[in-house]
Amino acid sequence: MADIKKVGWIGTGVMGSSMAGHLADKGFQMQVYTRTKAKAQALLDKGATWAESPAKAAEGADIVFAIVGFPKDVEEVFLGGNGVLAGLGKGGICCDMTTSSPALAARIAEEAQRKGCVSLDAPVTGGDVGARNATLSIFVGGDAAAFEKAKPCFEAMGKKLMHCGAPGTGQKAKLANQVAVAGVMFSVCESLLFAQEAGLDVAQWLELVAAGAAGSAAMNGLGRRMLIRDFKPGFFIDHFVKDLGLCLEECRRMGIVLPATTLAESFYRMLQLRNRGSDGTQAVIEVLAELSNKKWKEHK
Amino acid sequence: MADIKKVGWIGTGVMGSSMAGHLADKGFQMQVYTRTKAKAQALLDKGATWAESPAKAAEGADIVFAIVGFPKDVEEVFLGGNGVLAGLGKGGICCDMTTSSPALAARIAEEAQRKGCVSLDAPVTGGDVGARNATLSIFVGGDAAAFEKAKPCFEAMGKKLMHCGAPGTGQKAKLANQVAVAGVMFSVCESLLFAQEAGLDVAQWLELVAAGAAGSAAMNGLGRRMLIRDFKPGFFIDHFVKDLGLCLEECRRMGIVLPATTLAESFYRMLQLRNRGSDGTQAVIEVLAELSNKKWKEHK
Repeated sequence: MADIKKVGWIGTGVMGSSMAGHLADKGFQMQVYTRTKAKAQALLDKGATWAESPAKAAEGADIVFAIVGFPKDVEEVFLGGNGVLAGLGKGGICCDMTTSSPALAARIAEEAQRKGCVSLDAPVTGGDVGARNATLSIFVGGDAAAFEKAKPCFEAMGKKLMHCGAPGTGQKAKLANQVAVAGVMFSVCESLLFAQEAGLDVAQWLELVAAGAAGSAAMNGLGRRMLIRDFKPGFFIDHFVKDLGLCLEECRRMGIVLPATTLAESFYRMLQLRNRGSDGTQAVIEVLAELSNKKWKEHK
Repeated sequence: MADIKKVGWIGTGVMGSSMAGHLADKGFQMQVYTRTKAKAQALLDKGATWAESPAKAAEGADIVFAIVGFPKDVEEVFLGGNGVLAGLGKGGICCDMTTSSPALAARIAEEAQRKGCVSLDAPVTGGDVGARNATLSIFVGGDAAAFEKAKPCFEAMGKKLMHCGAPGTGQKAKLANQVAVAGVMFSVCESLLFAQEAGLDVAQWLELVAAGAAGSAAMNGLGRRMLIRDFKPGFFIDHFVKDLGLCLEECRRMGIVLPATTLAESFYRMLQLRNRGSDGTQAVIEVLAELSNKKWKEHK
């Protein structure tokens, strides 16, 4: 296949704007669409052109990336009347980087094939910091040749790539990651609440424990934010509930039961029921404490 | 207080033999007692003298350490008819390094005080490797002056010390650590089973994920052992069930509910019910898979 020159980009949230920025910096021509035009301004300033719809962003592009909110947004962006597949030329590549449904990814791949195009699902991990520093990990499902062709773009955005297999497997790899994140975060909360109620110096305790067998990225990162009751979002609870819902749906489809993930999902939904969907995932320690009629305190 | 010259040592299992060895190497005089005399031979070869009972090991010692199996062993070793407190002179220090009950630690401290002695509870983390390399973390509860006096001994065995507060708080800090370990290990298992059933290259997936937000000491260590179905014990399931039982007992006492710890404890007990108490804690992935009528496979 020929090299990629022109890219379409859809979605300029916290993740998307940084990721697209790296592509623009590498000299890819870019056509950008997003719901709120003002959020595309930084990209337009880097020379991207504005597109009035996903279909327009796809016209003449070699590849179109999207990173939006929820599976229904992904469906609209790729398969809708003004969606990417309505505008993309034959041989073009659709690439959804949203964490979304594996089944939807497979459906988009089928629709793409029907139009002479090809599709990749390529969700990422690494958060806002990884997006900013181009150190994301990217899990890619779909056609191997398209993956090779898209590699220079992925390498502009991330540090580690994994081609996982058939369409949807990129999403499955990301969901498996979220299963691990959910459980480890919950264990950090339980251990911190235990330490608090035991009357320990929780901050000092965390220093010791984080370096040992109980240590984790979650304990070192979000655990420390919990200590100072910083519940600002690194990752929104609303998005995590979406991800965990997809995990559980996939568990049903695969015929497995994951009790700790099921448990964690319940707790994140409890936060939504308390209108805390816009808090960061680390706020789950507050509802865990509330469950026992306790209050999570500040520990300096 | 005067410096420590003579120590008693009780318990020469995987942890205890390494830890006592470091003290002997530092030149402390040592009186050793353990259930199976042959297991003390390495210490006797280093110049330690054999004691026929915990009481004898305590006679004339400035401090007596014990690291044994279960709280009932701790009770027998310190409070029994031939126990440490029956032999220890006034001003001597008892120091239990077993992971044991905070309430029992408080009781031993009371009994010690009644005899003009003082007691510390000082459980450790870092496992067999930490014991061998003298890189343990040590959580210490009990009298601050006794902690200061015992410091040279602790520093011979470990790298990080935390004086946690009153008698029993060392145990509480260790149990909080076990809460975190239980949850993180369980989350590793759930994510690996998800990845397997999704048909991913599980070993490659783990490489990517272990470096990110889902990463943990458990994923990097025991997760990799799970991949090759290595269930040899770094830490025995039987001991972990003991620890988690103590955690849940303490939760009841403190009036908190920790659902993920409760869940994990159930799974480790399911392993005991399958006669796998002598396997390593990472074997929990097998019973998790069995729950869904799946089989955990080897992934190279």
